[in-house]
Amino acid sequence: MLYHLFVYLDKAYQLPGAGLFYYLSFRSAMAAILSLIISLIIGKKIIQILQRKQIGEEIRNLGLEGQLSKRGTPTMGGIIILASILVPTLLFANLTNIYIILMIITTVWLGFVGWIDDYIKVFKKNKEGLESKFKLAGQIVLGLIVGVTLWYSNDVVIREKVVRPVTVQVGDSISRKIEVSYYREVKSTKTTIPFVKNHEFNYRDLVSFAHEHAEWLKWFVYVLAIIFIITAVSNGANITDGLDGLATGTSAIIGATLGILAYVSGNAIFSDYLNIMYIPNSGELVVFASAFMGATIGFLWYNSYPAQVFMGDTGSLALGGIIAVFAIVIRKELLIPILCGIFLVENLSVMLQVSYFKYTKRKYGEGRRIFLMAPLHHHYQKKGYPETKIVTRFWIVGFLLAVITIVTLKIR
Amino acid sequence: MLYHLFVYLDKAYQLPGAGLFYYLSFRSAMAAILSLIISLIIGKKIIQILQRKQIGEEIRNLGLEGQLSKRGTPTMGGIIILASILVPTLLFANLTNIYIILMIITTVWLGFVGWIDDYIKVFKKNKEGLESKFKLAGQIVLGLIVGVTLWYSNDVVIREKVVRPVTVQVGDSISRKIEVSYYREVKSTKTTIPFVKNHEFNYRDLVSFAHEHAEWLKWFVYVLAIIFIITAVSNGANITDGLDGLATGTSAIIGATLGILAYVSGNAIFSDYLNIMYIPNSGELVVFASAFMGATIGFLWYNSYPAQVFMGDTGSLALGGIIAVFAIVIRKELLIPILCGIFLVENLSVMLQVSYFKYTKRKYGEGRRIFLMAPLHHHYQKKGYPETKIVTRFWIVGFLLAVITIVTLKIR
Repeated sequence: MLYHLFVYLDKAYQLPGAGLFYYLSFRSAMAAILSLIISLIIGKKIIQILQRKQIGEEIRNLGLEGQLSKRGTPTMGGIIILASILVPTLLFANLTNIYIILMIITTVWLGFVGWIDDYIKVFKKNKEGLESKFKLAGQIVLGLIVGVTLWYSNDVVIREKVVRPVTVQVGDSISRKIEVSYYREVKSTKTTIPFVKNHEFNYRDLVSFAHEHAEWLKWFVYVLAIIFIITAVSNGANITDGLDGLATGTSAIIGATLGILAYVSGNAIFSDYLNIMYIPNSGELVVFASAFMGATIGFLWYNSYPAQVFMGDTGSLALGGIIAVFAIVIRKELLIPILCGIFLVENLSVMLQVSYFKYTKRKYGEGRRIFLMAPLHHHYQKKGYPETKIVTRFWIVGFLLAVITIVTLKIR
Repeated sequence: MLYHLFVYLDKAYQLPGAGLFYYLSFRSAMAAILSLIISLIIGKKIIQILQRKQIGEEIRNLGLEGQLSKRGTPTMGGIIILASILVPTLLFANLTNIYIILMIITTVWLGFVGWIDDYIKVFKKNKEGLESKFKLAGQIVLGLIVGVTLWYSNDVVIREKVVRPVTVQVGDSISRKIEVSYYREVKSTKTTIPFVKNHEFNYRDLVSFAHEHAEWLKWFVYVLAIIFIITAVSNGANITDGLDGLATGTSAIIGATLGILAYVSGNAIFSDYLNIMYIPNSGELVVFASAFMGATIGFLWYNSYPAQVFMGDTGSLALGGIIAVFAIVIRKELLIPILCGIFLVENLSVMLQVSYFKYTKRKYGEGRRIFLMAPLHHHYQKKGYPETKIVTRFWIVGFLLAVITIVTLKIR
C-alpha cells in the first residue's frame, strides 16, 4: 500500500524521493529487509505466546539422537513466516497485479489449512492432525483458483514473436516476398521446458488428438497439471520439514532462484537479451520473492539448530504451495523436479519405503525397508550423521540444484 | 582453457554446442557447479591426507564449551577452497582478461602467504605462525601489484558519458547551439560511493589541493587506498574464521553479492538500464565469482558444524583478499564496510577490546573488558549461545547486509 501511496504522492505532488517506488529493485530490496526485520521482531514475541499456550508438537519417539530434547519446542511458527511475507508484500507490491493477488491468496489459504492441521494436532492431541482428504481438498481448491484465474484473466498473457511472410509491391510489375516479425501478447498454455529446442512446451499438445477447436480441453489439462503440481510440492515441503532449519533453508534457496527467474521473465529487455519467455506483469513478483526470501531467512534465526520454534504445517504447506504457484505463474513449473529436488527426493523416499515394505510383506510375509528410516533425512540420522551436518548438506545440494536449474535455460 | 578451446573450435570448425561458451551465464553456471563438485571430491581426499600428516592446529584452551572436541581437526583446508576456485576459473574464464589475471594472482599469492603461516604453526609448533610483519608485507605486495596494474593497464577503463556543447551552422548566417552526448572509455580513479549524487567518488579529489597535472599523485593515493583495503579485509576474514562455517558462509554470501554486482557492471545493457557505472571487460569476473561461491559453499560440506576440517590462514587470508580485490576492480570497494560488515565488526571488536584493556590498565591499574571475549563470536559463546546458533545468525546478518549493499545503489 506504500507503493500506491507513494506513486500517488509522486504524481500529485512530485514528493521528492517518492519516485523511488517505481523501481522494482528498490521495492524488492525494501521488502527483503523489512520481512527479515519483521520475522526477527515478531518471532520473539510469537514464540513466547506459543510457549505460554503450550503449543508444542507431540513428538513421536523415533529413537533418534537428541530427539527428546526437542520436546516442548513450540510449533505453528509458520505464522511468523506468513506474517513476514504478507506485510512487506502488502506494503511494497502493486496490489492490482494479478500475480501478486494470486500469491497472497496462496499464502493465506494454505497457511489457513496448515493452521487447522496444527490446531487439531496440538489441542485435540490428535497426532494425525487434519484428515488428509481435507488437506488434499484445500490444495485442490487452491489449484482450481489459480488455474481458472490463469485461464480467464486478461492480465495473464505471454509475449510471442510472430513471423509473417508479406508480399511487397516494389515497382509496377515487380513484387518481393519478405518476412516481417512483430511481438504480440497472447493467452497461452505454453510453458518453459529444459533441454528441448526453443525451450517451450504447450500443454495443448497433450490433447492434440482432440478437435483443434476444443479450447476448453487444453485449459482443462492445464488446470489439472496445476492442481497436481501444487499438491505435490506442498506435500514435499511438508515431508522435508523434519530437521531444524531443513525446510526453511531449502525454501529460501528455492525462493531466491524463483526471484531471479521472475526478474528476468518480467523484464522485456533482460528476457529478450537472455532469450527467455517474456511474461508481462510478472516482474512484480520479485517483490513477493524478496519478502519470501527475507521471511524464510529471518525465520532461520529461531528455527536453526537448536530450534526454538518449528514452523508446523502452518509453515510447510504454505511454503510448498507458494513455491508451486510462483513457479507456475512464471511458467517455470516444469523445472520444479530439478529446483525442488530435495522435496522430490524426500517425497520419493517415503513412497518407496512404504511401497517396498508393503510389497515385501505380501511376498515374503515380512516387511523390508530400503532406508533405515523415511523420509530420507531420518535415514542419515540413523546412520549417525549429526543433525546440523545433514541440514547443511541438504542445503548445499539445494544450492547445486538451483544453479543447475538456471543453467538448463541456456542449454538447448 | 576450455573457453579458449571451444571458442577456437567454434570459429574453426563450427563445432555444434561450442557456441555456448560465448555465454557468460553458461560458463558461470558451469564454473559454480564444477567448483562445488571439485570441493566435495578433493575435500574428502585432502582431509584424509591432512589427518594422516597430523596437520591439526594447536587449539588454545579458551574455556569455551565443546572446544576441546575440536582438537585433532585438521587445518589448512583452505587448499580445498583455493583448488576449487582456480580449476574452474582456468577452465571456463577468458584467461586473457586483465581482471581474471588479477584474481588468479590474488588467490595464489595470498593462499601461499597463508599456507606458510599455517605451516609454521603446525610444523614449528609456533602458535603465532608467520610473523605479522611478513604477513603484512605479503598483503602490501599484492596491493602494489593490483594498484599498479589498474594504474597502467590499458584494459582497465570505465565508460563515461560526455556531454559537449556544439555550435551547428544551420543556414548561411544562422547557427544553433546544441548538446551532443557520447560515451568514451577512460582511465580513471573513479569509484562508486553510496548515498551521494551520481554515486561517484574520485580518489583524485583527495589530492585536489595539488597541481592538477600531478597525475601520478592521484594514482599514488589510489594505490595506497587499495593496499589499505586489501590488508583490512584479508585480516577481517582471518579474525572471523573462529567458529565452524562462520568465515566460509559469510564469504559465500559476500561472493554471491559481488558476482551480481560484476554481472551488472560488466554488461553494457544492464548497467545502462540500472544506471550503474559500466566497466568494460569486468563481466568476465562473474565466472570467477561463481567459482568462488561454489568453492565456499562446497567447503561448507566439510567445514559446517561439526567441522571435519578448518580452512586455516591458507583459506581465510585468501578469501578476504579475493573479496577486497574483486570489490576494487569492479569499483565497489567503498561498499565493503557494509557488505563485509561481519568482518568489520569482528575486527573492531578485537581493536576495542585490546585498546580498552590497555587504557583501563593504565588508568585504573586493572585491565577491563568490553566483551566477555574478543573477537565478537567468542563473546556470544561465553554468553552461552550454541555455536551453530551464532554461526547461522551471523550468516543471516551477512545476508541482510548484502541486501542493504545492493539497495544503496538505488538510493540517491
